[in-house]
Amino acid sequence: MTPSSIQAQKSKRLMVFCGRSVPGLGEKIAETLHIKLGDIENKTFSNGEIYVRYRENIRGSDVFLIQSTSDPVNENLMELLIMIQAARLASARRITAVMPWMGYCRQDKKSAGREPISAKLVADLLQVAGADRVLTMDLHQGQVQGFFNIPVDHMTALSIISGYFRLKQIPEEEIVVVSPDVGGVKRAKKFAEKLGPKVDLAILTKTRPEHNVAEIMAVIGDVKDKVAIMVDDMIDTAGTMKAGAETLTGMGAREVYSACTHAVLSGAAYERLEDSPIKEVVVTDTLPLNPEKSAGKIRVLSTASTLADTIQSVFLDESVSRLFEGDDQLF
Amino acid sequence: MTPSSIQAQKSKRLMVFCGRSVPGLGEKIAETLHIKLGDIENKTFSNGEIYVRYRENIRGSDVFLIQSTSDPVNENLMELLIMIQAARLASARRITAVMPWMGYCRQDKKSAGREPISAKLVADLLQVAGADRVLTMDLHQGQVQGFFNIPVDHMTALSIISGYFRLKQIPEEEIVVVSPDVGGVKRAKKFAEKLGPKVDLAILTKTRPEHNVAEIMAVIGDVKDKVAIMVDDMIDTAGTMKAGAETLTGMGAREVYSACTHAVLSGAAYERLEDSPIKEVVVTDTLPLNPEKSAGKIRVLSTASTLADTIQSVFLDESVSRLFEGDDQLF
Amino acid sequence: MTPSSIQAQKSKRLMVFCGRSVPGLGEKIAETLHIKLGDIENKTFSNGEIYVRYRENIRGSDVFLIQSTSDPVNENLMELLIMIQAARLASARRITAVMPWMGYCRQDKKSAGREPISAKLVADLLQVAGADRVLTMDLHQGQVQGFFNIPVDHMTALSIISGYFRLKQIPEEEIVVVSPDVGGVKRAKKFAEKLGPKVDLAILTKTRPEHNVAEIMAVIGDVKDKVAIMVDDMIDTAGTMKAGAETLTGMGAREVYSACTHAVLSGAAYERLEDSPIKEVVVTDTLPLNPEKSAGKIRVLSTASTLADTIQSVFLDESVSRLFEGDDQLF
Amino acid sequence: MTPSSIQAQKSKRLMVFCGRSVPGLGEKIAETLHIKLGDIENKTFSNGEIYVRYRENIRGSDVFLIQSTSDPVNENLMELLIMIQAARLASARRITAVMPWMGYCRQDKKSAGREPISAKLVADLLQVAGADRVLTMDLHQGQVQGFFNIPVDHMTALSIISGYFRLKQIPEEEIVVVSPDVGGVKRAKKFAEKLGPKVDLAILTKTRPEHNVAEIMAVIGDVKDKVAIMVDDMIDTAGTMKAGAETLTGMGAREVYSACTHAVLSGAAYERLEDSPIKEVVVTDTLPLNPEKSAGKIRVLSTASTLADTIQSVFLDESVSRLFEGDDQLF
Amino acid sequence: MTPSSIQAQKSKRLMVFCGRSVPGLGEKIAETLHIKLGDIENKTFSNGEIYVRYRENIRGSDVFLIQSTSDPVNENLMELLIMIQAARLASARRITAVMPWMGYCRQDKKSAGREPISAKLVADLLQVAGADRVLTMDLHQGQVQGFFNIPVDHMTALSIISGYFRLKQIPEEEIVVVSPDVGGVKRAKKFAEKLGPKVDLAILTKTRPEHNVAEIMAVIGDVKDKVAIMVDDMIDTAGTMKAGAETLTGMGAREVYSACTHAVLSGAAYERLEDSPIKEVVVTDTLPLNPEKSAGKIRVLSTASTLADTIQSVFLDESVSRLFEGDDQLF
Amino acid sequence: MTPSSIQAQKSKRLMVFCGRSVPGLGEKIAETLHIKLGDIENKTFSNGEIYVRYRENIRGSDVFLIQSTSDPVNENLMELLIMIQAARLASARRITAVMPWMGYCRQDKKSAGREPISAKLVADLLQVAGADRVLTMDLHQGQVQGFFNIPVDHMTALSIISGYFRLKQIPEEEIVVVSPDVGGVKRAKKFAEKLGPKVDLAILTKTRPEHNVAEIMAVIGDVKDKVAIMVDDMIDTAGTMKAGAETLTGMGAREVYSACTHAVLSGAAYERLEDSPIKEVVVTDTLPLNPEKSAGKIRVLSTASTLADTIQSVFLDESVSRLFEGDDQLF
Repeated sequence: MTPSSIQAQKSKRLMVFCGRSVPGLGEKIAETLHIKLGDIENKTFSNGEIYVRYRENIRGSDVFLIQSTSDPVNENLMELLIMIQAARLASARRITAVMPWMGYCRQDKKSAGREPISAKLVADLLQVAGADRVLTMDLHQGQVQGFFNIPVDHMTALSIISGYFRLKQIPEEEIVVVSPDVGGVKRAKKFAEKLGPKVDLAILTKTRPEHNVAEIMAVIGDVKDKVAIMVDDMIDTAGTMKAGAETLTGMGAREVYSACTHAVLSGAAYERLEDSPIKEVVVTDTLPLNPEKSAGKIRVLSTASTLADTIQSVFLDESVSRLFEGDDQLF
Repeated sequence: MTPSSIQAQKSKRLMVFCGRSVPGLGEKIAETLHIKLGDIENKTFSNGEIYVRYRENIRGSDVFLIQSTSDPVNENLMELLIMIQAARLASARRITAVMPWMGYCRQDKKSAGREPISAKLVADLLQVAGADRVLTMDLHQGQVQGFFNIPVDHMTALSIISGYFRLKQIPEEEIVVVSPDVGGVKRAKKFAEKLGPKVDLAILTKTRPEHNVAEIMAVIGDVKDKVAIMVDDMIDTAGTMKAGAETLTGMGAREVYSACTHAVLSGAAYERLEDSPIKEVVVTDTLPLNPEKSAGKIRVLSTASTLADTIQSVFLDESVSRLFEGDDQLF
Repeated sequence: MTPSSIQAQKSKRLMVFCGRSVPGLGEKIAETLHIKLGDIENKTFSNGEIYVRYRENIRGSDVFLIQSTSDPVNENLMELLIMIQAARLASARRITAVMPWMGYCRQDKKSAGREPISAKLVADLLQVAGADRVLTMDLHQGQVQGFFNIPVDHMTALSIISGYFRLKQIPEEEIVVVSPDVGGVKRAKKFAEKLGPKVDLAILTKTRPEHNVAEIMAVIGDVKDKVAIMVDDMIDTAGTMKAGAETLTGMGAREVYSACTHAVLSGAAYERLEDSPIKEVVVTDTLPLNPEKSAGKIRVLSTASTLADTIQSVFLDESVSRLFEGDDQLF
Repeated sequence: MTPSSIQAQKSKRLMVFCGRSVPGLGEKIAETLHIKLGDIENKTFSNGEIYVRYRENIRGSDVFLIQSTSDPVNENLMELLIMIQAARLASARRITAVMPWMGYCRQDKKSAGREPISAKLVADLLQVAGADRVLTMDLHQGQVQGFFNIPVDHMTALSIISGYFRLKQIPEEEIVVVSPDVGGVKRAKKFAEKLGPKVDLAILTKTRPEHNVAEIMAVIGDVKDKVAIMVDDMIDTAGTMKAGAETLTGMGAREVYSACTHAVLSGAAYERLEDSPIKEVVVTDTLPLNPEKSAGKIRVLSTASTLADTIQSVFLDESVSRLFEGDDQLF
Repeated sequence: MTPSSIQAQKSKRLMVFCGRSVPGLGEKIAETLHIKLGDIENKTFSNGEIYVRYRENIRGSDVFLIQSTSDPVNENLMELLIMIQAARLASARRITAVMPWMGYCRQDKKSAGREPISAKLVADLLQVAGADRVLTMDLHQGQVQGFFNIPVDHMTALSIISGYFRLKQIPEEEIVVVSPDVGGVKRAKKFAEKLGPKVDLAILTKTRPEHNVAEIMAVIGDVKDKVAIMVDDMIDTAGTMKAGAETLTGMGAREVYSACTHAVLSGAAYERLEDSPIKEVVVTDTLPLNPEKSAGKIRVLSTASTLADTIQSVFLDESVSRLFEGDDQLF
Repeated sequence: MTPSSIQAQKSKRLMVFCGRSVPGLGEKIAETLHIKLGDIENKTFSNGEIYVRYRENIRGSDVFLIQSTSDPVNENLMELLIMIQAARLASARRITAVMPWMGYCRQDKKSAGREPISAKLVADLLQVAGADRVLTMDLHQGQVQGFFNIPVDHMTALSIISGYFRLKQIPEEEIVVVSPDVGGVKRAKKFAEKLGPKVDLAILTKTRPEHNVAEIMAVIGDVKDKVAIMVDDMIDTAGTMKAGAETLTGMGAREVYSACTHAVLSGAAYERLEDSPIKEVVVTDTLPLNPEKSAGKIRVLSTASTLADTIQSVFLDESVSRLFEGDDQLF
């Protein structure tokens, strides 16, 4: 007798594709997962329009698209949006936008009338294009998770960075972690805790002694004779980092380090860091660095294995928070 | 000849209705606007279900619904949602949810795996019920604006509070503004700037000197012989404020004040404030206070005229940011 | 050669979590399914806000959340909404809101101008929070299914209740099923049919003999010397049930029973039932009963096995209507 | 100096267009409003596809589209949907679908597994096409209002019909209003109340005396020597009405009338009514009648002025419930 | 120990159901797939409303619904929409609307003010009803794919038709492919390429030699002594095909064929084709033909195996474009 | 007595803002409307992120945002999206995206598997950002209108261009309008009709005489001794135009002109046009031209007054199609 249906076993398939912003990071992630990067054609026509085509079948797959929306941010964002839409139209089962660095994430509220909230716009664009999930790292504010209606896996590289500093074996009581501004004190405190209970905390703040007088930088907390580590989520133009290092040195700090997850490094950032009293700048590979300029003080740690582990956990429905809890207990 | 259409002049009509959480504030706002509060029936059946009915025609009106989602937060939120839906079904032209205090706004990101983002949920609920706009005050994090797809007018009471302190005429150089925790330093700095360029800044932070030792509170910055003003967006159980005041006194502060916009004051908050070395607690009327308990140290400033001005500007399509810019220039 | 994808077998996993409204029912359902209730933390802060956290990994699971929106209805509804959102953000594969009793379901249309349709609002809230399906029982009106855009499995406890009455072995021709009002005649007829073809039907109706005269209750149909069973979807304040029982007794009914699925029993309901000529009140456990007051006449039948069977069928993609068809053939 | 904006006075414009299902009703409504029906081209191509084009500018207008989704229901529904979409694309300010009769409204819940809820589907279709509001009459169940996310103005013709019967001056105590089935008792009771406090109520119910025996019709309540008025929302095949009239006559009713809002009258309905003991069938013009067949017993009352009044109130933002409250006080 | 979840293997199940427009095509597709057509009840009530019920369990299935929206287009479209909604409410896992012919697809843009874009409306209706995918053939314009937010598998029958002509073994250099109007030249060129590199191309165009003179048909390109094959996506009233054939014959074409995918054939189409100089009309079975009238010149090719292959590929997550690429290489 | 509402007259206000892609066109449009361009700050940070702020109040205004998404297309698109979102958050009453040229509009369907439909993506992005309407010109395919759920006003510059050629007073019978490829014949025919009934039509087509032989360009239709005008919606790399002109010259055309609305002119386009036998290239100002390179053969016509008229009609709710009908009658 003819049956009225066809049965088939259901399996799932993980595929990873990479945009043109961070090809190296994509390669490393794929390597860690023991797969080849998926075959995709990404090109820009002479009129500036981007074209994308998947060169292998992705029907029913669990697709992870790796793209940092680094400079040129609008090019990279649009490339990611097109990759997402094409994957949806090509019947991927689930699409995860893996954005180690999410551009525009600092424009996350209106500070003045008639401003945009660009980070919310980016969230809306990713969703309307067809992303089912987002995987990102050290958002400027964790609240940006709430801009999405889809699940967000929010990783952190703080442990990678603090792990690196622990290898230097500086005595805890000689370290002071410094927040470069009043908005980042919470992050600085978390980082200090990862380095040990006796690590101190200080805050840099810009202040104007009187009306019509130029702003100066002041330190709240004690840094004298200490090893100061300025920590932030990102370094952009490096102006604050340079001024901060000078202030800290002026206040008697023995050595000054600078650390962050996202090395945006725009404008004269490389030059400023080079010219500053900072001894070493510790960053990660969530954005591509300028290989010619990053030779000197800059030390780049890789987030590839963290990202690969998370991708695998998401694919296998295993706990992701577990990955970071285990981490916490090391410190 | 018969025409094929009827023409009519188009006018707009502002109406204000108030839920049962802050009836006094609603009355004051209406008074400032020189109108009566709209006639609405809000009741709770014996089985706990809420019923709402507008007792006057609201078709085509620009309706403002005033409700703080204070304790009992779920009752007050549901009442507001029902008011919004009923207004939509009754063909109001535009519905603005005026929430001087937005409950659940602190649960604004996932800090641990498998947590909710309740503030985002509240935003989603308000929108699905039919709100066209939200008007609120001193959100715990300004980023919560981005949880909405509808425009949010975000007011602040910082100027009302700083204005009150300026009347005390304490010399600038004797004041230190204290953030009760590492997450509120930015707000404290803004408040300090409103009081004058010479006002100092300090931060309270909980720290654990060694593993398995109880947390203690420490001060970063100098408070000795100063008048300390601890400022925050809200006071909930008042535990931090009490401990902070004791620490500041212990570190030699001359006098300690406490200030916030939102007087949540749950649990033993009233008792804690009474028992603490705090001289005066300055709050506003965005939540209803317990009249029996708030007699002593608590000073309540009203936000009614700020809210009424904003409502009128929204109705008349006038700039709202203008209201707060003018304010800034006073300082 | 490195493959370009990772393959994995796909399995599915059923998990059941229970809110704080009907913990006993949740336990019984889990027991019937031979699993433990999932580990979840549900708590209320001193300021009235609810917090929820899943204590075990639910990624990729088929999650069933059991919560009756019984009194305190707004607390229980909000708890359910937060559970749903947290499950969605924690990447559950599918979320079914199991609401044995759906509060607000009587406010299902506008009977007067400017009223809400609260049942529709509840449907909208559940969906925006992230529910994929709803499983509920004996809705006041079946049409409420259409308020949802997601599939609704609509169970009935009529067979459980009629089965209980059949055990009493009252001769069919001595029974009259009575609808307590004109809106419930269809349900009463269905119930009568379950008891046997010779069972009679009668209707209670409130009527006002003349203008400005108090309403009295009248019976349409014959109840003299019969065993009258008043049946409804719910008993709330029990006012109608008490007056009905008195009227039926006055019209010569030999014995009066009262039966319903949902024992809302608000206000003075327990006292009214106790004081009435009703011999026995048959209800189910879709809402929690007051254990102190429900000792006397009230008989509680359990819906746990019906709900467990349905949950299992939904999980295994088996027909749900089949469960209730089989039932029909017994009568 | 050049200004940076152009100002213009804002007015609103009401336009009424009519589909091809009830041209006569559309004409009457326009007449009552003292306007011409809007100029629209509605045609069907030889391949069965419908084409619609507005022949006059409707930008910014408040457009009311009159169309009953009567037989051929799918043609009429699709024509309405196309009219709505074309109006939206042509930049109408607001679009109200005026459906005196809403086809598919009886399929309003799942009574068996794997059935559609077609009434909900129709609601979804109207909304996705672009309707901003719906205006309809005597829905089979009022709950269908909740299938829409847009405001629904739900009119009733019960007063028009009861007004007609009051003109007959039958003494109240001689009338019994009869619900033709157990689902319509509420409506019958409301109608009886409109005729006077002494008017009685009875219910027709189909019952099966024993298993495997044909269903017979029974009356609950007393009809002997009375003038029986069977009332329902609609008459479709008229089978129940005919059988009901015969049963009522058999039980001694002096005269039998039949009344409803919606004269669907499909299949052999006209013949059945003609052949039945019904003296007069009172209906309204919400559906087009077959002029050849409706000569005899059928009395058609017009809903045009009720619909026109409602349209005008909606346009002018005046209360609509007011129209029907006044009515209630007459009885 | 009791586990906290139930595990089950996940499988998938393909089911095919067919509406009443193309029962023969449905049967052939099922046969090719070696399954029985699913059991569904589709009926029309005497009042014109359609009713649908699935007679077997479809929970969790991958459901394909076959329905051409051929004349009566609105009936067939509504039947499909109801089938989709019922499948969604019955918890199908995925629903694919298989529309070999999509009615209304020519009304795909506004050519005049205040027109509808009916093809977009149809897309919106299918999506709001609950379709997850669409599978269709030779859309009038491929751009209609972009009217959907869901994936569209767009098949072509051009290879089936060109394959048939290749069997005739007409020498390439004797063939001219003719586009019957200026909008179809691209399709004609593609078809010509499938027949061979030496096949010529010509275009028919309507032109008006002077103002107020009737339009005449002209040929651009050379057809003298050639075998002309007019090719289009559809033949509707066949007016253009008849006039085109006469013009081509007049210009010296040796033989004239007509070919299209969709045999709409409305109005006097059959008669016109019979009366024309066309030798053979080659069509497919995407629409049902009138068996009485299609005896003569009309040759019907079947699309069943193409559709069945595509359905199977979609079900098994295999590449669909692969099916058509292989095809291209044959020519 | 205090009133319960405030009344105000309702007026509307038109404001025009311009992005950075076509500042000159924006200025001309504003000038035609006799207003100043609205004051807006558009800037790009050193990290590549765009920032926008409205420098004047836009609450309640009818805002028109002029931006061509020309090269750099992703920058210009993102700037437009941010302008739209900021306008929505700033409470504009209505937002119209005026895109004289819509980038990505050629990627309007999938021609191969796993491609994007980028034009649909752009439509989705504009809508999710908050655009209420779109105003654009000469879309590559008119069907792209259907990619939007919001109204699209689709202008054409064909009359502007044909008007320019009529001024040359070339005798009708000496002109042949040439479509540069098989997809543009419809547009070429429309253009020919605007020039006069005796104007001829020809088509350029690429063809491959045998397998593995290079494609050559052929002409269908007669061009000998004629003035050939190649017309298209856009000229991008100008490769087809150059080859076409050479082919036409080779076939005996007396003179060759090239015309289009959108002068994309990417890559070596300017050089190719210069090197070709084309006598004059007629374009419009919907994209910014390279002033250094466009000196020679290129003639730029302005669309500013057409766009300004349309904006004014949209603002005043006047018919827009009227603007283009009048035009048609001139020819």
